[in-house]
Amino acid sequence: MTQQDGALAHVRTHRAEHLEQLKQLVSIPSISTLPEYKGEVGRTAEWVAAELRRIGMTRVDIIATPGHPIVYAEWRGAPGRPTVLVYGHYDVQPVDPVSEWVSGPFDATVRGDNLYGRGASDMKGQILANLKAVEALAQQGPLPVNIKYVIEGEEEIGSLHLGDFIDSRREALRCDVVLNCDAGIHRPDQPAIVYALRGLAYFELEVRSPKQDLHSGLFGGSIRNPAQVLCELIAGMHDADGRVTLPGFYEKVQPLDDEERQVLAQVPHSDEEWREMTGVSALWGEKGYTTVERVGARPTLEINGLISGFTGEGSKTVLPAKALAKLSTRLVPNQDPGQVCGQLSEYLRRHAPEGVTWEVRELVHGAPAVVKRDSPAMRAAASALKEVFGVEPIFKREGGSVPVVGLLQQKLGVDSIMLGFALPDDGIHGPNEKQHLPSFYRGIETYIRFLTAL
Amino acid sequence: MTQQDGALAHVRTHRAEHLEQLKQLVSIPSISTLPEYKGEVGRTAEWVAAELRRIGMTRVDIIATPGHPIVYAEWRGAPGRPTVLVYGHYDVQPVDPVSEWVSGPFDATVRGDNLYGRGASDMKGQILANLKAVEALAQQGPLPVNIKYVIEGEEEIGSLHLGDFIDSRREALRCDVVLNCDAGIHRPDQPAIVYALRGLAYFELEVRSPKQDLHSGLFGGSIRNPAQVLCELIAGMHDADGRVTLPGFYEKVQPLDDEERQVLAQVPHSDEEWREMTGVSALWGEKGYTTVERVGARPTLEINGLISGFTGEGSKTVLPAKALAKLSTRLVPNQDPGQVCGQLSEYLRRHAPEGVTWEVRELVHGAPAVVKRDSPAMRAAASALKEVFGVEPIFKREGGSVPVVGLLQQKLGVDSIMLGFALPDDGIHGPNEKQHLPSFYRGIETYIRFLTAL
Repeated sequence: MTQQDGALAHVRTHRAEHLEQLKQLVSIPSISTLPEYKGEVGRTAEWVAAELRRIGMTRVDIIATPGHPIVYAEWRGAPGRPTVLVYGHYDVQPVDPVSEWVSGPFDATVRGDNLYGRGASDMKGQILANLKAVEALAQQGPLPVNIKYVIEGEEEIGSLHLGDFIDSRREALRCDVVLNCDAGIHRPDQPAIVYALRGLAYFELEVRSPKQDLHSGLFGGSIRNPAQVLCELIAGMHDADGRVTLPGFYEKVQPLDDEERQVLAQVPHSDEEWREMTGVSALWGEKGYTTVERVGARPTLEINGLISGFTGEGSKTVLPAKALAKLSTRLVPNQDPGQVCGQLSEYLRRHAPEGVTWEVRELVHGAPAVVKRDSPAMRAAASALKEVFGVEPIFKREGGSVPVVGLLQQKLGVDSIMLGFALPDDGIHGPNEKQHLPSFYRGIETYIRFLTAL
Repeated sequence: MTQQDGALAHVRTHRAEHLEQLKQLVSIPSISTLPEYKGEVGRTAEWVAAELRRIGMTRVDIIATPGHPIVYAEWRGAPGRPTVLVYGHYDVQPVDPVSEWVSGPFDATVRGDNLYGRGASDMKGQILANLKAVEALAQQGPLPVNIKYVIEGEEEIGSLHLGDFIDSRREALRCDVVLNCDAGIHRPDQPAIVYALRGLAYFELEVRSPKQDLHSGLFGGSIRNPAQVLCELIAGMHDADGRVTLPGFYEKVQPLDDEERQVLAQVPHSDEEWREMTGVSALWGEKGYTTVERVGARPTLEINGLISGFTGEGSKTVLPAKALAKLSTRLVPNQDPGQVCGQLSEYLRRHAPEGVTWEVRELVHGAPAVVKRDSPAMRAAASALKEVFGVEPIFKREGGSVPVVGLLQQKLGVDSIMLGFALPDDGIHGPNEKQHLPSFYRGIETYIRFLTAL
């Protein structure tokens, strides 16, 4: 029996155990954006580090940063063979609105084919699938490749300290390819490889008018209401064709060429299914593009949050002193996330009326990335997926942002293979996030085949 | 010494005691809109009832309603003399944003000439000023008028059960005039009588799009974002001239005639001071009207609150499932608050895009009112103010809503005299609400003179 076959046989008989471990990992609330969860984030790093030691990594460090720690691990016992750097993150998004969860976000509950819990899909399921693959291979003999792990705890807040970490260890992180597990497939029966990711620039916009909240009857109609002004400013950020109106926003956008539109047209997608999955009665987006193009290959601007004045139960007749929006742009090559803040400020300078003040705070930004579709590692990934799923993977662009792909491309000069097993309807970042368990088990097998095929 | 002179002498030597009592009353957090304060609202009713008994009312009832209780009291010992029904409310607004208060909202703290605390001005200061006036008169002999009190606990949530209460006791509430103490003066040295109040229609508008919060990268740009749609809908509710665009909104508005514009032009007002008081760099409002007209005699629409998506610290890349606004219109004769909900719904039917659903919930409504400026009671009020302040009162319309004025006009056929001692910069409904204490003491003296002059 080959090492690969032995490993595959092993994982098929240990699924119950793997599920238990996934439940354990998902039950730790590693919400990186909320300061009160700092201890839990640290506990998660320790859980991951212990697991890396257990599966045979010869060096495992938990490296403190000014924020949350980075787990680094390595095994270098295959001289002459390629070195794979596995990237992942163990932090998760907040859980609000918590009332909409069917089971507790950290209860790690199985219903049907799915494990429900915050981070199950994004991306604790993917991390664990990879670790279980490496564990199974290592039990059969020395690993077929050298392997390094960088598993951070700040991906959901913009990988704040990853750049410094890479800069300070450029030599130690040297590798032939990055395996980025923060990825997904198209449908349970349709594997996919994401070859492009959108960049992100995320802002808070605050509009202020009176120096304090006022009585809306006594003052209403005589001064600008900052909530109304915020709404007017936001309303003007798209034109009637669904295009973003920030000055210069599209200037550096690489147009889609016919060859790539052809590739994207092959992505099995149905607007009808997209409507059903999201629960809306009609789709919307930039005029002249398909849904697949809109979410993968075109830049967008979304409102992520609004707050102003009185929002409790009942009525309070207040004219609010301020109004705040969280908003973010998704960017495509060659847009520069560092320039969007200037474009937004310019828009506000042009359109904010007199009588109010405004402030823009940039919270996060990350670069867009496109990787080559014809490298040896890409072929190894495609072949592993085909073996496990029985069909050729599709190549697609993804609307989400994994700024680390651009970061590693820039700092280490290495392309990333996006290989993960999340599904589009996993509800990541929303309530009732889940990991589809058959995809989790297939993911383990795919990683075994990928690492062997490199 | 006349009864009036004796009463005036008494109150001038008891100011410290009156202030202590006001601090007591303000320190009870009677927030009617928040269910968790129900007990405190009840305690406040008891405090007021005990005080009414102490000052000599011969009948005092705390009358339960499906919401908060109404305190009723009476003294009928002056047959042949007029009967005054004193209206007030002992409930207060919520206190958020609590972090902006210099001292705790229920700490009842004196700084300089002011007592700070939620409800100090709106309207516990006014209630207590009236009680202290009646107490002082009663100590000198039988009161000069028959007196009835209706002090409710639901004014800040729309006087939900006052109508039924009045209907069930129309005979007991019979009176010659209503003295509504929920009112204010123009400046500490300039008394005023409000002869008109705006009506109110307050709504929640909720826009929904996807069935749950989605990842803004994976779905952004392909479906309508409900926060963006809410902003677009709100932005369209005013035109470039600051007019409200709800269909039919201005149809029944009584235009201002020249005589009344003349009366309002005499209200001492400075746009410069209005800017300073509110802290804005420029005023705004409906084109073609002065600030005094805009806040008193023209209908308006204000956004009172906004909430959608992620609003915590940091960033969360969510495409929200829903967005909610609290918004309210202020109405003038002869607008019908019952019709505004239909106008808002019609606006939404015309302008809401496909791909979202919306719902309007009417929370509160109350009628606008105008009372005669030349009745005997109005003359008694004007003369009492002139005696105490040394200058003639001005007559003004107020932007706020006291729906009970319209309610009593309609149900008992009696006009209200709006006589209270709040100031425009008291910060009612906002943080750091205060009662100006010299105005409080003058208020006590004015009520003594008014009741004597009737």
